[in-house]
Amino acid sequence: MSTAVEQLLTALAAHVQTKPAEFGSLRIRTDDATLRRHSRDKSYHHESQRPRAVVAVASEAHVSLVLSLANALKVPVVAYAAGTSLEAQATLIDHNGIILDVSEMDNVVAVHEQDLDCVVEPGVGWGELREHLKPTGLFFPPDPGAAACIGGMCGTNCSGTLAFRYGTMKDNVLSLRVVLADGTVIKTRNRAVKSSAGYDLTRLFIGSEGTLGIVTQATLRLRRIPTHSSVVIAQFPTLSASAIVVQRLVQSGAPFLRLEIIDDLCIKAVNTEIEDPARKFAELTTIMAECAGGSHDAVLEQLASFKQACGDGVMNLTVATNEEEAEHLWSLRKRAYFSATALRQHEVDKKFTVVVTDVAVPISRLVDILVATKKMIAEAQLVSPIVAHAGDGNFHCLMVVDDNDPAEIERATTVRDKMALLALQMEGTCTGEHGIGIGKIHLLEKELGHGAMQLMRTLKKALDPNNILNPGKVFHLESPSKL
Amino acid sequence: MSTAVEQLLTALAAHVQTKPAEFGSLRIRTDDATLRRHSRDKSYHHESQRPRAVVAVASEAHVSLVLSLANALKVPVVAYAAGTSLEAQATLIDHNGIILDVSEMDNVVAVHEQDLDCVVEPGVGWGELREHLKPTGLFFPPDPGAAACIGGMCGTNCSGTLAFRYGTMKDNVLSLRVVLADGTVIKTRNRAVKSSAGYDLTRLFIGSEGTLGIVTQATLRLRRIPTHSSVVIAQFPTLSASAIVVQRLVQSGAPFLRLEIIDDLCIKAVNTEIEDPARKFAELTTIMAECAGGSHDAVLEQLASFKQACGDGVMNLTVATNEEEAEHLWSLRKRAYFSATALRQHEVDKKFTVVVTDVAVPISRLVDILVATKKMIAEAQLVSPIVAHAGDGNFHCLMVVDDNDPAEIERATTVRDKMALLALQMEGTCTGEHGIGIGKIHLLEKELGHGAMQLMRTLKKALDPNNILNPGKVFHLESPSKL
Repeated sequence: MSTAVEQLLTALAAHVQTKPAEFGSLRIRTDDATLRRHSRDKSYHHESQRPRAVVAVASEAHVSLVLSLANALKVPVVAYAAGTSLEAQATLIDHNGIILDVSEMDNVVAVHEQDLDCVVEPGVGWGELREHLKPTGLFFPPDPGAAACIGGMCGTNCSGTLAFRYGTMKDNVLSLRVVLADGTVIKTRNRAVKSSAGYDLTRLFIGSEGTLGIVTQATLRLRRIPTHSSVVIAQFPTLSASAIVVQRLVQSGAPFLRLEIIDDLCIKAVNTEIEDPARKFAELTTIMAECAGGSHDAVLEQLASFKQACGDGVMNLTVATNEEEAEHLWSLRKRAYFSATALRQHEVDKKFTVVVTDVAVPISRLVDILVATKKMIAEAQLVSPIVAHAGDGNFHCLMVVDDNDPAEIERATTVRDKMALLALQMEGTCTGEHGIGIGKIHLLEKELGHGAMQLMRTLKKALDPNNILNPGKVFHLESPSKL
Repeated sequence: MSTAVEQLLTALAAHVQTKPAEFGSLRIRTDDATLRRHSRDKSYHHESQRPRAVVAVASEAHVSLVLSLANALKVPVVAYAAGTSLEAQATLIDHNGIILDVSEMDNVVAVHEQDLDCVVEPGVGWGELREHLKPTGLFFPPDPGAAACIGGMCGTNCSGTLAFRYGTMKDNVLSLRVVLADGTVIKTRNRAVKSSAGYDLTRLFIGSEGTLGIVTQATLRLRRIPTHSSVVIAQFPTLSASAIVVQRLVQSGAPFLRLEIIDDLCIKAVNTEIEDPARKFAELTTIMAECAGGSHDAVLEQLASFKQACGDGVMNLTVATNEEEAEHLWSLRKRAYFSATALRQHEVDKKFTVVVTDVAVPISRLVDILVATKKMIAEAQLVSPIVAHAGDGNFHCLMVVDDNDPAEIERATTVRDKMALLALQMEGTCTGEHGIGIGKIHLLEKELGHGAMQLMRTLKKALDPNNILNPGKVFHLESPSKL
């Protein structure tokens, strides 16, 4: 007898053949290269399984067909677009499942310029969308990893550097179309910016990491690109000195567009990629702020409040005087992730992986947790730059580990857990923007308690009784006491 | 045999007597005045039932006890604090139930000034909280009806005039403690401003109108009170002329604190309450904007953009030059609801009720729906001022009806429904901030479709299998086709 996955693929193939008008563009891929490519996302340090097939869909009807059949046959389905998730959200933990590739659903369906919104499919990348919207003078703020697509951005409730002014994905998505586990298609909301019409289905799906439904369309709230802006960096002798300034700025109600901290190690890494010695940055902990508003005066006002908050402790303070300089300063932040491994490039014949982790705390605790984390990294003898969406009390460690050194990887995951537990002690969260996936599944109950976890399980069981949607992510279906 | 409600009250009384330390302050009230006061909220035109008892609770443990017993006995429970809801959210539709009075749970539990948040109980009023916070220079933005309390504000996802800059309740609540139907207490989230830790339980409850759980504590995000502000009003010959200006302002990315429209009839009503003829307002449709920022220049810049957008069509433009003038201009908006009945004060020996309704549309459709609504009101021979949170595409009709004229009330509810259906045609919502309750229960499926409604029913059944929490609100438990 054939397995459930084989039955699913046979049934899908039959639909493709018998209804070519509707399903002709649905592709079932089982070649080695495709399966290999879809057996990992960006969270290299997590275990994941090779799928039995990758089903590439081109429409909502395709998604609905796949889910209705998979549900009947109880076959696990994981949605995948760019695969940029960092806690293994886009991978299978069960080999007997399929990847649903939504990357070809990449249409910008509508831009309602007069309403400041647009409608897009899940395979649209945010960078691509930003280019598409440029002529309108509008943009969609969330800016996570460069290649990320709207579908996954909904899944993890991503954010990025602009969340400081504009909020996270939850604050910028007006409405979703979602296919539920049994293939039913729903719309969560209409397009008005305000609504009190029933339960908040939109936010039920945002941050649910593909465990409750698959997003097939998102209506996004757009903002007008600020007409005036400038970037400023301020360098400090210590991480704590910089974090104290950020806390002060946030507490004063600072209106910056972005407010980031990049530590000395991170700058050292970025410097390795800069050839011109005159353009290298001093290797000191750095605050980077983007000031932006509707006039030159508004920008100057923000710059003045920034300088004032820096006080006497600042060592260098550089304001971009033109766009090219702003771009150069801003490149510091943009290169952080990609340059981290350069810190160990002198260790020849080794292959490095970056274990990325993030936590967030109430802003008054930012100094404490950053200092404690820096100490933990040193004690664990790890090489790990720190970059912070500091204005939101959120930061990342980019732990550069030797892929062939299990002991080092173990030390990195221990630091990751200790950071998270410290954040929880401070009434913070084990993840500000990367989500739970499988990487933080053991931390969520510590954060929210047994009651909240049981409620999440109740929701999951009600919406996906056969547990086909990204099973094994966010939480285990049975509580630990029952296992 | 005694009824379920009687058994519940007996069991509660036993707890009060046997565990006075824990439950001594729980009060069971069955006196006529209390029952009468709790058989209505502000939605006078809806049917509602007199409760069998009002149980006044003073702690989370009390709420948990009441729900666990009520759940076992299947007794309906409706939470009530100020009773300011407008679609009958705070009333029973089944006489055999109880009102859970949370108005005595009115503690400000903590103010975390350094984190810009505070923790409050559901019976705290937003006005009262604003006073409490004043010395810190912080405030909580949502500003619905004057007497509204945090519990109900969570229930309906309220907003108000400040939502234009700061968003609705969903955007301003960090975390909740909630008692579920069976008495379980959960915490939805920690205090960091950003989190991607699991399903969004906070927003599952916000807007659920007490049908999924009872809020016992809310952690609220606070903002710094702008240091500089000014109020400006601009008067126009027609409603459409004013709405076109608002659309233009919103589309340009206007940064105002508030952006309201008050129609000519509304001003006429407010004028009846102003004795000094010199202080009366010209009876023309009026835009009111509050400009606010971190400096005098920022305010002047907003004022300049406001004036420019008004163009040549403006008839009067008045900028407040001091706080007293700002207060006078702002009183226009604040008095709107309370002065509406004055429009019919010449009709002696009649008792008037205001049927309040609200809808919201994508901003480009604001002119169209306002003009159409004004026409509908005229055709139905109703007296109804219009006030709009115009910047959000959201507006209210305040239909002044003769309480003893069923035909007139019927015409009012017909206009209410036609407005809502028109908003839906424009991809808007049947309620921007008042919620569904029972008043718009027949409109929600038209807005979201059958699939979304079934999903809401699935959620309700999973969280409240005995249907004790505010039964009969938001939607009917069985879909119409099954009835």
